[in-house]
Order: sequence, then structure tokens, then C-alpha cells
Amino acid sequence: MSRPRLQMRLGQAGLGTIGAPLAQALARGRVPGVRLCRLAVRRRLRPQRLGLGQIAQAASLMEMARDPELDAVVELLGGADGAALQFVRAALTAGKPVITANKALLAKHGSALAQLAEAQKVGLYYEAAIGGGIPIVKTLRESLVGTRVRAVFGILNGTCNFILSEMEARGLAFADALKAAQRLGLAEPNPEADISGADAAQKLALLSSLAFGVKPQDSIRPIGIAQIGLSDMRWAAELGYRIRLLARAEQKGRQLIQEVGPMLVPAAHLLAHMEKARNAIFLRAEPIGTLLLEGEGAGPGPTVASLLADVSDCAAARPLWPFARAARHWRALPLGAPARRAWYLRVGMRDEAGSMAQVSRVLAQERVSLQEVVQRAPQPRAASVPVVFVTHACAADAIARARAQLLKRRLIARDSLLLPLFAESATRN
Amino acid sequence: MSRPRLQMRLGQAGLGTIGAPLAQALARGRVPGVRLCRLAVRRRLRPQRLGLGQIAQAASLMEMARDPELDAVVELLGGADGAALQFVRAALTAGKPVITANKALLAKHGSALAQLAEAQKVGLYYEAAIGGGIPIVKTLRESLVGTRVRAVFGILNGTCNFILSEMEARGLAFADALKAAQRLGLAEPNPEADISGADAAQKLALLSSLAFGVKPQDSIRPIGIAQIGLSDMRWAAELGYRIRLLARAEQKGRQLIQEVGPMLVPAAHLLAHMEKARNAIFLRAEPIGTLLLEGEGAGPGPTVASLLADVSDCAAARPLWPFARAARHWRALPLGAPARRAWYLRVGMRDEAGSMAQVSRVLAQERVSLQEVVQRAPQPRAASVPVVFVTHACAADAIARARAQLLKRRLIARDSLLLPLFAESATRN
Repeated sequence: MSRPRLQMRLGQAGLGTIGAPLAQALARGRVPGVRLCRLAVRRRLRPQRLGLGQIAQAASLMEMARDPELDAVVELLGGADGAALQFVRAALTAGKPVITANKALLAKHGSALAQLAEAQKVGLYYEAAIGGGIPIVKTLRESLVGTRVRAVFGILNGTCNFILSEMEARGLAFADALKAAQRLGLAEPNPEADISGADAAQKLALLSSLAFGVKPQDSIRPIGIAQIGLSDMRWAAELGYRIRLLARAEQKGRQLIQEVGPMLVPAAHLLAHMEKARNAIFLRAEPIGTLLLEGEGAGPGPTVASLLADVSDCAAARPLWPFARAARHWRALPLGAPARRAWYLRVGMRDEAGSMAQVSRVLAQERVSLQEVVQRAPQPRAASVPVVFVTHACAADAIARARAQLLKRRLIARDSLLLPLFAESATRN
Repeated sequence: MSRPRLQMRLGQAGLGTIGAPLAQALARGRVPGVRLCRLAVRRRLRPQRLGLGQIAQAASLMEMARDPELDAVVELLGGADGAALQFVRAALTAGKPVITANKALLAKHGSALAQLAEAQKVGLYYEAAIGGGIPIVKTLRESLVGTRVRAVFGILNGTCNFILSEMEARGLAFADALKAAQRLGLAEPNPEADISGADAAQKLALLSSLAFGVKPQDSIRPIGIAQIGLSDMRWAAELGYRIRLLARAEQKGRQLIQEVGPMLVPAAHLLAHMEKARNAIFLRAEPIGTLLLEGEGAGPGPTVASLLADVSDCAAARPLWPFARAARHWRALPLGAPARRAWYLRVGMRDEAGSMAQVSRVLAQERVSLQEVVQRAPQPRAASVPVVFVTHACAADAIARARAQLLKRRLIARDSLLLPLFAESATRN
């Protein structure tokens, strides 16, 4: 009934940390109605060592993409361009559905690949590209079909969340928390894509397309977490907040607001309770209200589970528009900026009589009014004293201008940090 | 591509608080490829008043069920038997897929109806029956297809959660919190199905079948929340817990453990942060880890959204086994009981010298050892003094025997309360 009569013959390209357990699960028949018939690997002895010696190897990626004996292919090569792009393009062109976990590829080429899949009337599946084992693509493509999505926000990068929650929980400096993540295999030797926010930005680009029907485009400029000091974690805690790398896309009128960066989250919000490498995605939609999906954001287990679900959907022949609607119906929502909101500004203030009065005057001139000010005793022999300001809602421009003024007048030291306070909607006043 | 070429012609039975907005959404074309062609209603003028006068009315439920001009039907009549059962049975027999929000019907007759749907090769959809707008049925049926589910647990009844969180937050007595829920339309005039835990038990029966491949059976005996006093909320808070009505199904070896009842949840657990009428469902599965889905558990908006998703799936012709596997493959897992765990026991202890020594001796004789004991000064002229015991892990039998002994020896008053402490797995130890 739910299973196709005939077996779907599957080819898999890539046999790394995700590919190996996926191929083993498929070979053990974990998805009924699917037979893994062909592997494309770089090291030809690897399948044997993984107990997959009985599965035929393709002569090349292109041969696999065009093989008329295969009904669908899985792409696990990685990289936004190069072999992965050529392989996926060739497979779709040959009329084969493609299952992939490659968010970089989709963020960069998703729009062209979706149009190709659509023209060929085949599916393009990528549940594993976002949120590990969290069924966020399926939820947006299938469960929210009768709703209007207003906002998608949350924690999309487990590495950053691990680093920030370790800094917080164990008092580690950023560099030490990053090393801990690397030791646990939660961060790459080159962690740039994660800590710069680029990975979260790619995922948000895909979610924005699914949620708002816009063309998928890797155009979000993220703010990374390397600037966050241990002192900021402590200030935030003292003020009743936690610092998290958040991604958010929200429709405001006819504008789409997208942002990725560290923010202060109220300690009582569920987002503040996401520890370690967990991901959490909130959807706000009418008439459904707020929906939260939370789970392990990365790692072979969750990723393989999402790939198996996609393989199963593909076998059951449920092609959907890759990005929730046909490419010709993609909306052109102009990009907007979050309007007014509250900010956290941590500065090193010049340690002199009257400094606070001068700083306050500059803020007032830019119409930045203050909710809270905390000043601590300076370190011995330090030229500046640490001060944190929490502002009332104001425009990003205003607080940025005020900060630039303070620096220009040498009222504060070079090293300062400005972070927005998270609120469920950044577009309310 | 994702849509069938031809329109699916839909009939809808029932036009109440859920049916009215559903029919309006369908009539507005919110699900492409679906046309609402027929309504079966009790009051024949109601469609007109709802702006649905253009939709033809069926002469009777049975006529609609058998109408060859309809491709699928929606059942929103309610009730575990009677008209709803006859209608669904007739529609499936006539080869029509059925979409329903009726958990009572499915918990009682799901096994027979699933077998009928299977024999007729049509789908039976019920996302709206569990967790309001939370896509839990889809997640279990489709996303976890390659995984092994170990446990399903969480908050399945928004009414109870509202009552308990209002008692906690506003210091209301149970009866007053219930009245508040009724005023807000969150509890029925006869609230028995909710506060007895029966509603949560029905949902858990469906989830157990989806998660563990067992036959759906309404055989879970719930414990309700009417016994929870305001003093218990306060004791729990003082000890670092919150009281929530939890439902849990867990596989332990070859046994299935199912339970529904109020438990003490550690204040730091995400479950303790679910306020008002929200539902939260945790899934523990290999290799995916723990997955949480959280959202509005009831109300027309979320329920209609789930119905629209089911209608869309039905139109896209994705029949699945109603309970995740074919009826002939349902597993026969014997039912087990949670083994050893910690308990909260609140008693009114006889206010006499030596009482505590005697009570402690009885507990020790039953091998119940204590983590914490809190005794408060008695009320003026009270014959007993309030005492709360938190035990180390022990068998349910042991603590129940100890309590019975204490009562028999008149060491405690009749009014006492025994609740388990929630732990992620009740079967460890």
C-alpha cells in the first residue's frame, strides 16, 4: 500500500562519515522497497572494508548519474561546486531524483537545480541538509501547506551552540571551547564555516525559500561568534540573558527580514535552554501558532536518519516542488532590515571623572535611551573600566552611530561589543 | 509535479468549531488540487450562514460515504462509536480515503479501521487527532522510517497542562484553575475526558502503535489530575520540580511500558517549561537521539492546519499504512510496568512524639529509602502535620505497600498523594 510494487534501484556517491553508515543501513534493507545497487567512491577498496563489497562500483560519477539501471541517486560528495554540482546536474538531467545532504550546494545552486528537477519532473530531497534529524523540510513542505508562515527562527548551527554553551557552563574562553568542540569532532579543523555563521546562513536561505516562497539565495551576511568574550557571557547571565547564535527570517509586510548572528536571549525563553550541539527551529504560522522542532543538529546518526526518510519518500514517489512552490511562482520579496530593538553594548570606558556623563550624553544625542547600565570596578592599572549598557528599542543605525561617536571621541576603547537582544518578533517596536 | 493532474473531489461530514473553518479554507482553495464538493450537516441552514451555501449538501451521511462522485471524505462528527464509526466504515468500504480528527474513534476502532483501509488500499489520515498542529503522525510515519523508536513521552493534553500551570503560576486551587480553563474554552463543560487523563491515554495508544508497531488499543489506564492540591504544587516547587500530566510509552527489552499520569518533572527539564495549553512530544530513536516537537495542542487553528496537511497528502496520493506498518506485521509486545523509580509521597502525619520514627521504620521495612524529607509546622488545632517524602528509586509495589501500612496503623491521614518523579527513562535501574 505505502510501498511501491517494484524496488527502487539506488546509486550512492560518497562513502565518508555519513555515506558509510547510510550505505550500511540501506544494504541491511532498512528502507523496504529500496535496493542499493551502485556505489561511486574514490578509494575502491573502501566498500570492501565496510562490508559493502557485494555492491557494484560505478566507473565514474558521470556514469552513475546517467546509468539507466538506476532509479535515483544519493549525493554525499560535499562542496558547493565541482564534482557535487556536476553529478547532481547530470543525474537530474538524466531524469533521476536526487537525495542530498549538501546545504552549501543547495544554497548556492538550489534555484537552478530546483528548476531543473521541476522541468524533469523528478524530486530533489534534502532533509539532511538542515537541522540533522529534525524533519524541518518535510514540515515546511508538507505539514504547513495550508498555513501562512510568518517567521522561522532558531539555532541552526550545533557547533556554535556547543561553543557558546560550553563557555557559559564551564567558564571557557572562546578559543578553549572551540578546541573542545574540535576534540569531540563537533568542529572541523578549519572551523570558519561554522563560527563565521556562514553555515547557519546557508541553512536559513533554504528555510526562507521553503517558508516564504522566495528563490533560494545564499545572500545573507552573517555575524560570527569569535568576537564573544567570556566576560560577555557573564554580563549577559547577570542581566538575565544567554548568548546564542540565532538565525531568523521573518516577513514584515511585503519585506523579508533575514539575519544570522549572536543575540542575547532572555533566560526564560526556550531558546536559552538549548544546550550543547542541539538545534531548535521555531515556526510561526497562521493559523497554527508557534511550532518548535528540536533535536540533534548534526552527526552521522541524525543525518543518516533524515537521508533514509528522504530515500523512503523518493521510493514512494512523492515528488514535491523542491522549495515548496513552482519556480515560476517564487515571490520577489524585497529584503528589509529589523527595525527598532533593544541592544547590548559592552565597552571599556575611559577611567576618568565625568566619563559616564559624557558617554550618556552621546547616547542621548543619538536618541538611544537606556534600560540598564552596569559598571564594574576597573582592573588594577587598567586605563578603562568595563561598562555594559542595555538600551531600549532603537534603530540599528542610531546605536551604531553612537558607538562610532564614542570611539571617535576616545571615550571608549577599541574593543567593544554590540549585540541585539532577541525578541520573538524583531519587527515589532 | 507535486500535485495530481485532476482535482480531488472531497466531501466533509460535520461543520462545527473545527469543520466550519476547515470548509471555509478548502472553499477558498487553500489546498491546490482539492475541491470541496459536498457537505453533510445536521442543520441545513448552517452552510449558508458560513458563506458555504454554494456547496451541495448530501442527503445523508451514508449517501456521502458511498457517493461515487467523491474521491475522499473528512469525518468531523466526533464520538468513538455511532454515526462517526458507521460513516468512516462505509467510506472505507466504498474505497474512499478518510481524513479524521477523531482520536476516540481511532483509539477504540483504529485497528479494525486500519485493516479495512489496508484491504481497500486507501489511506486513513489523522494528524489532527494528536497534538493539534504538531506534525507528530507524519514524523513517526514518514521521518522516522529508518530508525528504531525507543520511547515517546510528553504532554499530550493541553487542558491539563493549562490547569496545572495556572495552579502553579497563579496559586489557584484545582477547581478554580479548571473554571478558568472552561471560561477560555480550553475545557469542556464536562471536563472528565481531559482531567481523568483518558484523552491523553487515547492519544498515547495511537502514538504507541505508530512508534512501536503494536496494534492500536485503548487499554491504558490513566491517572487524572483532580487529586493534585495547591500544596503539592508548592511542595514540588520547593523541591525543585513541577507537576505535569505526562504520557509515556517506552520499549524495554520485549516489553512495552505505557503510562499516563501526573509526575514531578525536574524544573530544569524542557517539559517543565511547557506553559498553558501547549503540547510537547519527545521521541527517542536510534540513531537520531532525542527529538522534540512542541506547539499548540488544541484549538481550531492548529487542528485545521493539520487537517489541511492531511487533505493535501491524500490528494497527492500518498497512502501509507495507517499505523506505520501493515496490520499483519503488528508486533505483540507484552505490557510491562515501569520498574524502580523515585517517588513523591505527601502525607498528613499524626502529630505526636515519635510519629516520624514510626513512619520511617515502616518505610525502611518496605525497603523504601529516602532522598529528602520536609516537615512543616502543623496548622493550629490540626490533628496531623504535613510531611513530604522523596524516595530513592524503589518499586511501585514497595511504596504502595508502605503507604497502605502507614494508613492501616493510623500513622497518616486518609488524604495522601503518591506521584512518581519523572526521569527520561523510567525503566533504567
